[in-house]
This record gives sequence, structure tokens and C-alpha cells, in this order.
Amino acid sequence: MGVARHFDLGVGRLKPGPNDAITDVPGVLVGHKTIIADGLATGVTAVLPHGGDLFRSKVRAAVEIINGFGKSAGLIQLSELGTIETPILLTNTFSIAPCAEALIKRAIAANPEIGRETSTVNPVVCECNDGSINDIQAMAVTRQDAEAALDAARDGPVEQGSIGAGAGMTSFGFKAGIGSASRNLEIGGRGFTLGALVLSNFGRAGDLILPDGRRADPKGLSQPESGSIIIVLGTDIPLDDRQLNRVARRAGAGIARLGSYWGHGSGDIAIAFTTADPVPHVPSSPFSSVVRIDDGRIDLVFEAVVEATAEAILNALCAAGSAVGRNGRRIPALADWLKQRA
Amino acid sequence: MGVARHFDLGVGRLKPGPNDAITDVPGVLVGHKTIIADGLATGVTAVLPHGGDLFRSKVRAAVEIINGFGKSAGLIQLSELGTIETPILLTNTFSIAPCAEALIKRAIAANPEIGRETSTVNPVVCECNDGSINDIQAMAVTRQDAEAALDAARDGPVEQGSIGAGAGMTSFGFKAGIGSASRNLEIGGRGFTLGALVLSNFGRAGDLILPDGRRADPKGLSQPESGSIIIVLGTDIPLDDRQLNRVARRAGAGIARLGSYWGHGSGDIAIAFTTADPVPHVPSSPFSSVVRIDDGRIDLVFEAVVEATAEAILNALCAAGSAVGRNGRRIPALADWLKQRA
Amino acid sequence: MGVARHFDLGVGRLKPGPNDAITDVPGVLVGHKTIIADGLATGVTAVLPHGGDLFRSKVRAAVEIINGFGKSAGLIQLSELGTIETPILLTNTFSIAPCAEALIKRAIAANPEIGRETSTVNPVVCECNDGSINDIQAMAVTRQDAEAALDAARDGPVEQGSIGAGAGMTSFGFKAGIGSASRNLEIGGRGFTLGALVLSNFGRAGDLILPDGRRADPKGLSQPESGSIIIVLGTDIPLDDRQLNRVARRAGAGIARLGSYWGHGSGDIAIAFTTADPVPHVPSSPFSSVVRIDDGRIDLVFEAVVEATAEAILNALCAAGSAVGRNGRRIPALADWLKQRA
Amino acid sequence: MGVARHFDLGVGRLKPGPNDAITDVPGVLVGHKTIIADGLATGVTAVLPHGGDLFRSKVRAAVEIINGFGKSAGLIQLSELGTIETPILLTNTFSIAPCAEALIKRAIAANPEIGRETSTVNPVVCECNDGSINDIQAMAVTRQDAEAALDAARDGPVEQGSIGAGAGMTSFGFKAGIGSASRNLEIGGRGFTLGALVLSNFGRAGDLILPDGRRADPKGLSQPESGSIIIVLGTDIPLDDRQLNRVARRAGAGIARLGSYWGHGSGDIAIAFTTADPVPHVPSSPFSSVVRIDDGRIDLVFEAVVEATAEAILNALCAAGSAVGRNGRRIPALADWLKQRA
Repeated sequence: MGVARHFDLGVGRLKPGPNDAITDVPGVLVGHKTIIADGLATGVTAVLPHGGDLFRSKVRAAVEIINGFGKSAGLIQLSELGTIETPILLTNTFSIAPCAEALIKRAIAANPEIGRETSTVNPVVCECNDGSINDIQAMAVTRQDAEAALDAARDGPVEQGSIGAGAGMTSFGFKAGIGSASRNLEIGGRGFTLGALVLSNFGRAGDLILPDGRRADPKGLSQPESGSIIIVLGTDIPLDDRQLNRVARRAGAGIARLGSYWGHGSGDIAIAFTTADPVPHVPSSPFSSVVRIDDGRIDLVFEAVVEATAEAILNALCAAGSAVGRNGRRIPALADWLKQRA
Repeated sequence: MGVARHFDLGVGRLKPGPNDAITDVPGVLVGHKTIIADGLATGVTAVLPHGGDLFRSKVRAAVEIINGFGKSAGLIQLSELGTIETPILLTNTFSIAPCAEALIKRAIAANPEIGRETSTVNPVVCECNDGSINDIQAMAVTRQDAEAALDAARDGPVEQGSIGAGAGMTSFGFKAGIGSASRNLEIGGRGFTLGALVLSNFGRAGDLILPDGRRADPKGLSQPESGSIIIVLGTDIPLDDRQLNRVARRAGAGIARLGSYWGHGSGDIAIAFTTADPVPHVPSSPFSSVVRIDDGRIDLVFEAVVEATAEAILNALCAAGSAVGRNGRRIPALADWLKQRA
Repeated sequence: MGVARHFDLGVGRLKPGPNDAITDVPGVLVGHKTIIADGLATGVTAVLPHGGDLFRSKVRAAVEIINGFGKSAGLIQLSELGTIETPILLTNTFSIAPCAEALIKRAIAANPEIGRETSTVNPVVCECNDGSINDIQAMAVTRQDAEAALDAARDGPVEQGSIGAGAGMTSFGFKAGIGSASRNLEIGGRGFTLGALVLSNFGRAGDLILPDGRRADPKGLSQPESGSIIIVLGTDIPLDDRQLNRVARRAGAGIARLGSYWGHGSGDIAIAFTTADPVPHVPSSPFSSVVRIDDGRIDLVFEAVVEATAEAILNALCAAGSAVGRNGRRIPALADWLKQRA
Repeated sequence: MGVARHFDLGVGRLKPGPNDAITDVPGVLVGHKTIIADGLATGVTAVLPHGGDLFRSKVRAAVEIINGFGKSAGLIQLSELGTIETPILLTNTFSIAPCAEALIKRAIAANPEIGRETSTVNPVVCECNDGSINDIQAMAVTRQDAEAALDAARDGPVEQGSIGAGAGMTSFGFKAGIGSASRNLEIGGRGFTLGALVLSNFGRAGDLILPDGRRADPKGLSQPESGSIIIVLGTDIPLDDRQLNRVARRAGAGIARLGSYWGHGSGDIAIAFTTADPVPHVPSSPFSSVVRIDDGRIDLVFEAVVEATAEAILNALCAAGSAVGRNGRRIPALADWLKQRA
């Protein structure tokens, strides 16, 4: 296996960060807990915008519902208030509940005043349906699994493919899962990073368009466009809340670039956060200031979103080995398909 | 205690249904499970758009996020697809998870193909924060409590006030909770019903404006606008999906009528469903037809929404007895306030 | 005639500014051009966020479409970019075109590089339908009329009632038109002003609820809810773009407070701008900073929006004398109705 | 010149209609008025959803604001009511006003009760900025030009490239303008057509990705992503209003497929209408029914949108000859670029 760039499938013209991963954004951590057992191939992936107490120091964020066939938790408040106050957990569709409970319990443990002397906490959990490989009815993910993913969070290279929440996921008829990518960019003489981490489980077999124009079609398979993709975008670029909304929106262009038409049955959701100008739970002053870039420079950020999103998906596809579905049929690896055609 | 009409506080000019409750809409059922124990005053309320299998026969619905400071589950898919496929559960902020699990398990029990041969299921659970009376950190609601509320669902009069999810809720500095109201209306010579059920936990002390113009102010209390309200609107009027969105939106005018300005910390959410033209999970034909009313008649429906929403809130307030908050202070009953001024 | 406070119909608890008008916000100017002639009763009202070149120094703004049955111009770009770069013109439904042309020509005259060396300009023009009094088919408003309103812009007291764009407007079965109000508020020890100016042409006869709880019903008239209201909110409070959206949204609560249910046929639109941290057309740096208030303080701003909006409408109603409609029927003055009941 | 298929640049797998144009949808008409004169290269293009009186028989429609840097008229009401009641006119940014006036006057001429005995009319006019070729400050388009485009409307093949509103438009550094394409599709054994007509003026030079994977880069040119694209989608598929919204949204995937990231300065807007189940201005009954397809079949429609949108843009590019910009530089033709590389 490998990543897209091993196969000359890098996307676009901007330069990736050192790990070509969302962890290239200073402070961002990623952790996985994978569950592989009889009939089970599922898990949890955690993205931490920073390693501190997110309830006390919230990051500013926005969400884009590209297609809302999904059950993710926490997005309404994220959209209204423009903040994230817990780690972001990714898992399968029927495991939102234990993941949300883990986030609530951890936040209360660190901040016993939650729900008593101060407001409650808004857990953010996103999901895709891994039912074509995993027995989702088993509801195998526990609160302890969510905590294990949180505890495993670290910076540096991100493990990709069939790992964490990606264990049972597929895309375009190939095995997929977790992928990540990043872009370095310069604005006003200062260097910044934008990273994407995807839980890729979308795309109809036969629809994948590679960056070199080829269609990658795993013949004989018929995956309908009904799986979903979660795209987490993180950056240290100073963006105001309106700019974050526009940035999140561009993730849709990233997945369309690969041949998707945002299928009816696919819950396609993008969350974008910036680590710039976090929002304290208890503000020290009634006034605060947020730095933002000139809108005339934002095209570069949009471009980075499209490139990082598309490449993160390709990385998920290239890093995942083949698997066997619950129906007994083999789900091929894109890496094998590419090697056969090299 | 009683209801608003006992105190001459009926809202508007349209005629209520026989029970002045959402259950006046044919087929709609309501059930409660109340949890009162040491430090606990919470519960679950279930609204069933019909008594059959909602996964197989979905009702068409829309949602309006009046102010999104809330953690409700299932609303993104509701908004995208325009359907509800489980009962609607109301509970406290930290009990979304067990309620969602109860809905998933029940749907799977009735439809074992869920997540295997067919798509997953989207549980709809809405919440308010009852932390001023209830110890929300105890996370006392269990999956069994959710099932008890579902099992208790029936038509006829709706118990109101400090019951079910409303056990620990307050509004405008008074004890509140569950309230309901309905309106009969005639369109094109045919009779219809629109009902509202609210979980009322919003409104700053001193802001309540009664239908007769009086301000009802429980002196000495200071409830900030930070509690939330969930408004469930049900009807049998034939409305298309766009019309349902417009209908849901008018709930915001209903709560503004009582003096609210949709406070920052209040998760104010309205769901509207119609029992007309349900959507089968497995359609018998690629084409179906939806009946709708002429837009030129929809003002009558809007008016019914505002009246039923406002009266349901007043019913919640009038039906709830006084209580003692976790801080030891007494939370008065609006009924007592009204009697003192009669 | 007079204003609402002459009749003890002031709204809420916050203190108005010296003129109880949007011009209490430092820098904001208002001008009118009224057209009264045979069969004609229409005009133009201009609101200038500041007296300088708005194209070069844009104000930040947001828009809320309460009900979108309207033809206003410029709102899509306002929403995307969060800025206003021309004065705001109000007029009748069929006079958007000459008003937009006037704004374009003025902007080009001041900035000849528009559409050549730099981007085009986005004129903001909002409208209501004054067809019940005015012969709207005559399309009587000219570009010169729009320029006259712009040239008349000044600070100080705002003329209200049947003036400018309000000449032919009605509300709740009474003659209405232009109204304005303001509120002073203190945040973090600093004083600010929020003002509203409305073009009030909405509300069904019989639906008006006065602040003292009375229904003001001009018996025998039947104005359907089909007129529209434009609400312009201006302030000097430092608000970020997300906060401005939330502020604009609360105008809907202001009109609901008076008994409206946001009728199907009514184009109800609110624009909110702040004069804080304007956006230069040519930024001096790739980074800029925006000051914002703590979200925990924003309820006071919401309250000011509801109060100023409702009082501005009442001012429009109280300031307008009776008129005769195109159908020959008399449209009464609310001031007369109030005097008869004093 | 030619169209994309002459260069083997057809998009996707669905079959085009006989003219590969929006006029393949039964009843849809297109007309152009081109203005070429000293310093001028602009015009008007009219799309008529049907040839009858659109005010009396409105078509149902939806709009998607992909990026709102634009000044189009009529979209707010379109979005609220879900109908179009005039032809759709496309023109340059500063010519909205005369086009809107032409539509209002025509509607009044055919329906003298407009604005008197019945409601007003909502003209729909969309625009791009042709200022890189055309002297947009000249505001050369007149009401008569708009009428000429309306009068020229007919079915059959659509003239493409530098014609009508497309006279002065460019995309990806090449000359562009008007393009159209269509797809035939079968649902439930019945044949339908979906067509797209674009006014293509978007795309940064160097970003264009051709369907065969090549990047088409007109070296030495630097067109920023600041031009806009209007996409009109028409169909005879029975779609309800929610489905139309989802269909309109997919146009964004169509333009992303070609390499766009929806640039900051580009007003990218899609309108989708269906000729099925039109809405009479005066309904004959308080109830009507709308036929819709099973959501499970809608992916085919989404696919058709992406294919037709992308191919319409390529047709605009392939059909347009080279031109000279206002700055004296040559804007090449994609057809020439392709021929040099054949």
C-alpha cells in the first residue's frame, strides 16, 4: 500500500506539509482505535484541534452540509456559535451515542461545573455507514473505545486506510477509510498550513476520476453512491467566522473533482476549524478581536481546501488493502488496481 | 393547576380541537416517562406521528433552527430528506444518547434489515437543559426510560406541566415543562387540525408577556434566556415539503409573541410534520404524488402555528406546580401568580 | 399625528437615543424624496451608513430573509461578502431599477475605475408594494428621484409616516410608511446605539397587538397580510459577521411581537449593519482585525433589536395621517383610532 | 469553432438530446440579442421555460447560490415561493435594470391587473461581468434589447459562444459565453430530458481540467477567478420543490469537475426549473397535487446535472472564437488550443 503520491496521484500545485497530513497544522492531534473481530471491522478516529482543554479554549469553526443524509451530532450548535468545544470523533452510524457520552464525561471530568454552574457541553461526532463490511447492528463501539482513540491522539504522521473509524469503509468500489493531506501556503509573507482528514466511504463504483484523467473502475462491483464522507479541515490561517463558512463549503468542490455528484444516499459533511484566535469559555473582557485575511487572498485557501480534500481521499484509497464484504465478495484495493496498470 | 384557558389566557381567534392538544391530530400519540428522585427531576416525552412502523411509513417533515444553541439529534437528515422515520423523543441535554439508542434498537427489532440489506435509521431526539432543577451530570435517563415513554404513548388528553421531559424545566422564571394545544381549521370545505407540543424551558424572568398584555414577572428571580424550547408541530393538512418549511418557521413568531427575543443561550428548535401523503420506505412506484394547498391559503396555517405554539407554552406554564431549584430557591408556579392577581 | 411614545406606546425597557431614530447612530444619515401627484403616492428613502464613499469604505452587514416574497436587489452579495458598498435605497416594488441605476452611476462617478480596473458595484435597493394607494404601474420613480433622496440625507430627527418610500404604504389596515427608533445600551462600560428604520407596509387588518395588549382593529377593512416590511438596523456596536447575522435575525421577533405571523404574501427583510471596523475596498494589509463583543453579552443587543423594530413600526403608524386608497376607501390613521379611545 | 463533442470532449455516460441543448426539453425556448460595437461586446440571452404566459402558468423552480458575489435579481422570491413567473434573462452586471423593466412591462401588458387587482411580478435576471472585453460603464443594453432577445426565442439548436449575453464573456483565460447541453434519461420506463444553459465567465487561467485529464492553459494570461457563471437547468422530470433544490445544488459539482474551486470573486448561481405540474396564478382549487420521483432514483438526475453543466461550459468554450480584450491583449479560443494539440 502507500499514498497517492507514490502513484504520481498528487493533487494540484501547492506544496504539502512535512507529513502531508492534518497534523502538520501546529497543535492538531489524531488518534485511532480499530476494532477488528468476527464480523466486525469498525472503530473510532479522534481529531483534536489542540491538545489542551477544548471546553475552556474553544476553536472557531464552521460546517457545510454538502448532502445531509447523515446522523452526525453537534453540528447545529457548531453552526450557530461558530465554535468546537470537544475533540471531533469519527465512527460508524450507530456508534454516535457512546462517542458522545465519552466526550461529555471527559469534559465534565475536566470541568465539573458543566451543566451545574455553567452551560452544558456540545460533543461533535460524525459518522459513515460501514455496514457493507462491518456488522453495524452489533453496535460494537463502546465508550472505552472512544476514550482509547482520544488517548492515542498524537502529532506526526497519520496512519491511513483501514484504521480507526475507517476500518470498514469503502469508496468508489474500492476499500477506503481514513486519509489525510495538507498544504503549505504563504499569505502576506507568513507561512500557514491547511490540512484535511477524511473518513471516506462515498462514491459509486466506476465514478472515480483520477488526477491524471483515468477512470478507476473495479469492474463487476456495484457500490451505489450511498456511503458518506466526513471531511475535517484544520488550519492556523486567521479566518473570521464568515470566511470559515466559505472555506468549509469548498470541500464539496474537492470531492466533485474526483467524480462525485454528491449522491442522494451519501451524508457528505465538512467541518473547518482554525486554531487562530480561540474563544475562551470565560472571556477576560467583553470585547475581543479576531484577525482575518483580506478576502482578496482567500482563493489560495479555497485552492488548498480542494487539493487537500481530494488528496486525502486518494490517500485513504491508496493506503487501504483489499477486504471482504459481509456478502462475501472481495472489495479490491486501489493500490493493486494501479500496480496492475503501471 | 390548570391550563391557559382556565385563566382566560387562550391565544388568538381559531378554535382549539377537543383536547386542545397535538393528539387532536388523527393518529398522533404522546407518552411520558417521568423520573423524580433524590436530586433528579427529568424524563422523556415521546411524540409519535402515527402508531404504526414509522421506518416503513415515514411522515414528511421540516425543521426550523430558530436559535441553534442545542444538541438535538437527527435534524440534518430530516432537513435534507424531509422525512421522520422514528418517533420524536424529548429529554434533557445529556440524555440524547440513550434515547437515540432506544429508537435505533426498536427500529432494528421491527426491521431487521436495517443497516444490513437496507439503509440505517435516523433517530430524532431533541433536548433542553433542565440543570437548574435536575442534576444533569447524573445522566439518569436510561434506554429503558425512553422505551417506557414510547410504550406509554396514547391519544386523548396530554398530561402537561412537570411531566416526562418537562419534569425539571422552567420558563420566564416560572416552573414549566410540557404543554400542548391545537387548532381546528377549514380549508376548501374540509376540516383539518394543527397541534403543537412544546418542551418549554426558555425565557428570561420578567420577559413574559401574557395575551392580555400583562407582564408576568416572578420578582426576585433571574433566569437568563438560556434554557431552550423544542416545538413539535403536527397536522393532517396536505402540505408539500416547501410549505412544511414555511410552517415550521412560524413557530419562531409564536414564541416571540410571548416576549422572547430568541436568546443567545437558548436552543430554540421547531419540527413540523404532516400525516398527509406519508413516504413508504420501499416505494411501490418510481412516481408518487403529494397533495398541497394553494399557497394563498397558507396564512391560516401560519396563524394556527402561532396560536397553538404560544398557547402550548402558556399551558406548560399554567399546568406546572412550583418547585425547588438545585440552588435551594423556590421556582414559582404561574398559576399561583395568576390566582394572586385574579 | 406623532410618535408611539406620545400615546404611551413605547416598547420595552431600554432607553431611546436623543432622536429615537437610526440617525442616533453616529454617522448614519437618512433622506427622503416624496412623490405625490394624481394617482401617485410613492417615493424613495435613503439610508446612508456613513456620509463618506461607501465603495471605498464598506460597512459590514448581514441580511435576514424573514419571508422572501419580495424583489429587493443586492442581498445575495451582501450575504456572501458581509458588506454594503452603496447607500441603501427603499422604494416601491417596480422602482428597483431606477434606484439601482442611480447608485451605480454615483459609485462610478466617484470611482471611475469601477467595472474597468476594479470590480463592479453592488447596489442595495429594497421595496414594498404600495399598490393599494399608489398606481404602481406608472413606474413614476426616476433616477433623479433616487438622487434627490440621496442628496437630502442628513442626521438629526427622521421624518416619519407618509414620506419618502412610505408615502403610499399601509400596515394592519392603517396608513403607515417610514418609522424609526433607537436604543442606547452599555457594554463593558462603553455606550453604544442601535437604531432601526422601517418601511412598514405589512400586517393584516385586525392583527395589530399594541404594547399595552390592546388589539387595534380598523373595523370594516380587510388588508390581507401581503404588503412587506423592510427593516434596516444600524449600530456602532463591534460585532463580527456571525453576530451580525444573529442580530438581523431578531428583527423577525420584533414584528411578531406586534401580532404578525410573517404572512405568505409579505416580503419581510431585515438588513443589519455596523459602522465598527469598516472594510476598505483596497486593503492596506493582507491581515486586519475585527473587534467583537463576547457572545454572552449579545442578548442585550437582541433585546434592543426587538424593541427598536417594534417601536419603529409603531412610529410609522402613529406618524401617518389617514389616506384614500386607489379603490376610493379611506385608510384610517392609528393616531385617530388611539385618540378616540384615549 | 464547434462544440465539445467535435473535440472528443463530451462529458459522462448519459446520452444527449437531439440538439444537446436546453431546448431539447419540450417547450423550452432560447433567444439572443448581441451588441457588438465600438468598445462594446455584450447582449442579452433569454430562456423561456415555456412559450405561454409565465405569470399565469408559473413553473416550479429552485436556486442554488454556489458563491454569492453577484447581483442577480428575483432570486429571493424564487427561493421562497419555488416558482418562476417571467422568462429568465441573462446579461451583464450593469444591465439588470433595463432587463427587469422589460420583463415587468411585458407582464403588465399581458396581465393589466398586475400591481392593481393582483400581486406584482418578480422578474428574474442574472448577470456576469463582461468588463474585460466590454465597456460595462457604457450600460449599453436597453429595454429594447431585452425585448429583442425575448422576441428571438425559439426551440431547436441553440447558438453558442460569443452570442447574446455571452458576447463579452471569458472562462479559464479563453473566450467563452453561452453554452448548452442536454441529457436524455429514463425513469420508470418513461423518457425525460434535462438541459443546461450557461453564461460562462468564470475560471482562472490555468485551472481548466478537460474531461480527458489535460489542463488547458492559455500561457501568459492571468485571468483571476472573478468572473461568475450562471447555470440554468431545465427539465420535464416530475420533481417536488425539495428535489428541485437538491438538483440545483448539483450544478456546483458540475463546475468543480472542470477544475473550479468556486472563486471568491465569482458569482456562481444555478437555477433549476421543471415544466412538470406548473402553478397557475389563479388556482382552480384549494388543493393541487404534484408528482415526484422516488428519491432513490434521483442520483440519475444529479448525474445528468453534472454532465450537462460541465458539457455546456465546454460547449461555450469550444464555440467561441478568439477576441481582443479592452486592454488590447488577445483572448484565445479553446478550439484553436485544441487544434494545435490534436
